[in-house]
Order: sequence, then structure tokens, then C-alpha cells
Amino acid sequence: MRATVMYEAGDVRVEDVPDARLVEPTDALVTVTHSAICGSDLWPYKQLEATPGGRRMGHEFIGVIDETGDDVRTVKKGDLVVAPFVWSDGTCVFCREGLHTSCLHGGRYGVDGVDGGQGEAVRVPQADGTLVSLPVGKDDALMPSLLTLSDVMSTGHHAALSAEVGPGKTVAIIGDGAVGLCAVIASKRLGAERIIMLGHHDDRIALAKEFGATDIVEERGDEAVERVRELTDGLGAHSVLECVGHEESTVAAMLVARVGGAVGRVGVPQEDPIPEGTRTFFDNVKIAGGPAPARAYIEELLPDVLEGRIEPGRVFDRVGPLDDVPDGYRAMNDREALKVLIQP
Amino acid sequence: MRATVMYEAGDVRVEDVPDARLVEPTDALVTVTHSAICGSDLWPYKQLEATPGGRRMGHEFIGVIDETGDDVRTVKKGDLVVAPFVWSDGTCVFCREGLHTSCLHGGRYGVDGVDGGQGEAVRVPQADGTLVSLPVGKDDALMPSLLTLSDVMSTGHHAALSAEVGPGKTVAIIGDGAVGLCAVIASKRLGAERIIMLGHHDDRIALAKEFGATDIVEERGDEAVERVRELTDGLGAHSVLECVGHEESTVAAMLVARVGGAVGRVGVPQEDPIPEGTRTFFDNVKIAGGPAPARAYIEELLPDVLEGRIEPGRVFDRVGPLDDVPDGYRAMNDREALKVLIQP
Repeated sequence: MRATVMYEAGDVRVEDVPDARLVEPTDALVTVTHSAICGSDLWPYKQLEATPGGRRMGHEFIGVIDETGDDVRTVKKGDLVVAPFVWSDGTCVFCREGLHTSCLHGGRYGVDGVDGGQGEAVRVPQADGTLVSLPVGKDDALMPSLLTLSDVMSTGHHAALSAEVGPGKTVAIIGDGAVGLCAVIASKRLGAERIIMLGHHDDRIALAKEFGATDIVEERGDEAVERVRELTDGLGAHSVLECVGHEESTVAAMLVARVGGAVGRVGVPQEDPIPEGTRTFFDNVKIAGGPAPARAYIEELLPDVLEGRIEPGRVFDRVGPLDDVPDGYRAMNDREALKVLIQP
Repeated sequence: MRATVMYEAGDVRVEDVPDARLVEPTDALVTVTHSAICGSDLWPYKQLEATPGGRRMGHEFIGVIDETGDDVRTVKKGDLVVAPFVWSDGTCVFCREGLHTSCLHGGRYGVDGVDGGQGEAVRVPQADGTLVSLPVGKDDALMPSLLTLSDVMSTGHHAALSAEVGPGKTVAIIGDGAVGLCAVIASKRLGAERIIMLGHHDDRIALAKEFGATDIVEERGDEAVERVRELTDGLGAHSVLECVGHEESTVAAMLVARVGGAVGRVGVPQEDPIPEGTRTFFDNVKIAGGPAPARAYIEELLPDVLEGRIEPGRVFDRVGPLDDVPDGYRAMNDREALKVLIQP
């Protein structure tokens, strides 16, 4: 079969790999109908050292189940399913608490003999715990929005929950990528009164406004922080959603938080220590977040997508076949595309 | 009048200073009956550079109101009052939200012309917003426990709330000082199922057990982390209460937190960045806490003290007159005393 392999920073290829096949009795074999390139795929695209065997890529996908192992019970051949960006058994202590990203028997796509999502097919381990069947056909117009539940929409929702977004709250969103835009949707959905988007790209800002952003801050660094303070009577935002992961954006997140507020981190941290620890201490600012337990959120968000109340699929601004993946990485890295949808 | 002045690390004196007197119409003049030396006073005691004018010390006290300014309405001459460790107006946006430590018109004792608590009298600004009248006499046996509401008991409670302590939770408390011991009381009061105290001093550990600690970890550093993991089936503690503020103790706090757990920071951070930011991100561990809004908690905790359900005053293991303050600092710094109560 054909799948995406990254060999080092900037070197992404679609090539022949061994066919996906069942290994464990809890596996399902899924033929991918829709996949995506994630903002987090751009970290290795910028930084990966030479990797002779290559790294299989992709962790957001929808597909049709072709075959299931003998122990699979809740999904079956022919089901159209969405996969969260990590697989999980659904039964361990952390899964039962809704933290599937920390499943004791779970793992990631593209490593340890598990296929990546940017390919023709994927062996999905722990299929019962991982996959969620969709009540629509694979050509349904909702497919882009359903695909975002796999990662970006669930991640935006996690940022909002972690930052305690709720009715009456003022929210600041750092980052106008696909996750930041989904965070606008999530914040509006949770009742935020005011949604301040920090971003610099006209097309993304336009989409943020359509999704519900009430204020746009285009300044950078200290000036952006000052502008948010001005917009909030000097107080800052109750809820700050950090959707980038750079040190600079994390500093800004901490500095725009209101006394007693909360910062929800979902951008993968590029530096280990969390900056502004004294400031957040004296201001009693909470810091929360991490990888989104998408498996838990898919069920929560699915009705809103199916009934058209939210349209996160609008973050996709480019669609192509599997062979388009390498140029899709380039386009996203060059900020030419916001997010690329792949139809293998 | 006589009051405590620190001139540099290790140099604490009780000396004559100008008499406390009313300045603003919202002030109250309080004759101090009970005061205390705080663990946080030991930071300047270790580190203060030479300060020619000296620094007035003390922020935990109970006293009798001698005189009030013309605008004071809710407390009156003759009232026995407890003072939270910062003063606050009780009416600003943050006070109304229960975060009096961030009062827009508040401040600290011992600076900007406000007296310190380790002296014969204190001018208390914003008396209505700050002081809480006590329904007992100044010689009541409950006085030590009532005095802890000023800071250490309220701070232990804040650590527990910030770390989301509740019924069924496993709690780990880092630090066996007075705050850590009060954190044991607070955790038990909030229904914790298991309370693991990390500490090294026999007398403090004995008190921790009496207060409700179920497990003691005497190891240090990595071994302490490993021991907490062993005690919790490898999972860690739901709620971690950081009651020291050193980098080493903060690292330990982050490492013993369970996936999805919370760390409540109340030890004043001695390093700015928060360590283990990647670990806490991938484990979805919350980091919260800061200075305790004691003014809000006094009202919440007072009935439990008055009815004898909690006895935080047991953290005082030395009582002396005002002249005992300098040696009290030395004794606490040498770990000869846990916490010193002063009766000016």
C-alpha cells in the first residue's frame, strides 16, 4: 500500500510500504477515506534529524473498517469510523476517567509497528476502545468537520475546558492556526461573552470572526499583551488558550491572564520549564491542559457537528489526493495553506 | 513603641520605632496581643542584603482595636480582631471574587508606612475590608489556633483547594513545616482518603500523623518520588500540595502528581520558571495556587476552630514575649522551633 514517510526535516515522501494487516485480536483494519496534516506534524517537518528507516506520519483519519480481530465487539466491518489521534483501550483507570491520552495500554500512530494515518490503510489497535462509528456515509458533506474531531476540534475544546471557559467569561486565544480557530468555536459553544483572538493572518482572522471572535489583536509580543490588557480594562482575560507551544506565545499567555484566571495549554511545549512562574503564582493563575482526550470529546461534540451547530471543517482550505501530502506539508509550513485534507 | 526590624540576613532586632497612629480615615489602630514568625520570614532572614533603614517585620497577628478612623464602619474600638497577612478593601473586583491577596487597593504589612505585625501595635489600612472580629476573649485557649487563620492555616487550606482535594482523593504534601502540617488538617477536613506527608523531622511527622496523615515518606529527592509512586500503585497522587517553594520540592511535586491530577503551590517560588513543564503537559496535570486569600478563608474556617474540630494552633511549639523575636528567628531557622508565637 501507499503511505507517507518522513526521512528528515523537509523530506516527506509517499511511497510503497507493507500492507496494513491485523496483528492482535483487538485490532481493526481501516481503509482510510479522509486524512489530514496536523500543525504538530510541522514540528518534525522543521526539526527531524536524518532517520534512515523513515517515520510513518499522520494521526487524524476517518475510514471504513475492512476487517476486525476476533476480540473486537463494538465496531464491525463496513462501519465508517473516526479515529482519535491516539489509540486507547477504553477500560484502563485513566480511560475510565476520560483521559484516554494517558491510556495504560494505548499508544500513538506511526510508531511501534502501527501505521500512520496519512496512508491508504491503518491497523488500529484496541479498536473497541479507540474507534467511534459515524452515522453518515463517507461522501457526506459533513466529512471535513467530522474529521476535525480526530484532533483539532477536540484539542480546541480541551483548551477551552482547561482554561475554564464559561458564560460571561473573557477569553484570549493565542494562535490563529487550525487549533486556535477551533478554540474560538469551542469558546463560543461554552458561552464565552468575549473572545479575543491574537493572530496575524487576514484569512484566518476573517474565519475567526465568523466562528465568533469578538476582538482581534494583531500586535506581537509585549504590544499584544498590552493591547489585551487595554481591551479588558487592564485586568486581562479570565481564560487564556495557548494554541502554539512556543516560549514566546506561552509567555504571552501567562501575561494576559487575569488574576485568578486560567491558562489552557494545548500547543506542544517547545521548551520544558513553564515561564512566568512567579507572576502566575502571585496572581493565582491556574495552568492546565495537555493532549486532548479526543476519544472522550468525540461523543460530546458529535451531535453539534451532525446537526450543523458547529462547522470546524471550515479550517480545511486545501484538499488533495495522497500524492499531494509532501506539497501539503510545504504549503502548511509556508503558511500558504491553513490545513490540508487528504483523500487517499 | 517596640517593634521588630530586620537589617540584613541574620540581623533581627526589637527596637523603638515611632508609635503606630491613624493616618487614613479607613485605618484602625490595633494593639497586638498575639503575633507569629512565619516560615516566609525566614527567606529574608537567610538572604536580605544590608538594608540601612531596616525592614519592619511580621504579618500574622491578633489584637484589640484601640481607635478607628472616621470612615470605619464594621469593626469598632474594643473588638478583638484577627488580621489576614495582607490588607484589602473588601470591595474591589478581586475582593468580591474572593481573591483579596490581589486587592486593587490593598497591600502588605511592614512596607510603605504600614507597621509590621511583630510589634506592640499596627496601623491597619482598610480596616473594614481587612479585619475580622473574634467572638472570644483575648486570653481564650483557642488563641493560637485563631492566630493561624491569619496565614498558615488559610495557606494550607488554599493549597488543598488549589490541588482539588476532596473525598476519595489521595493527597501528597511536600513540606513538613507549619503550612504543610496545616495542609494535612485542611486535606482531612476536605475528605481526603489518603494523606501522604513527605518530611524528615520526627516531631513534625508525629504531629502530621495526629492531624490525619496516613503515610509518611522520609526519603528525599528521586527516592521520595519513587516511594510515593510505590504507595500509589505507580499512579501518583491526585492532589499534590507544594508547601516549600524550592526548586527541588517543586520538581518533586510535579513528579508525584497523578495523570489528570493537580498541584497546589503555596510555597513562595524561589526560582521563576516552573519545572517539569513537558511532563505536566503530557500528563494533563494542573498547576494552581499562590498567596492564600486568607480574608476569604477566615470566615470559612472560623467555625471549625471555635468548635474545636480543627486545632491548627498545635503548630506553635514555642511562646515568648516580643524580646524573644530575634532568638525565635534563629530557632526556626535552625529547625529548633517549628513555629514561634509572640505575646507582645
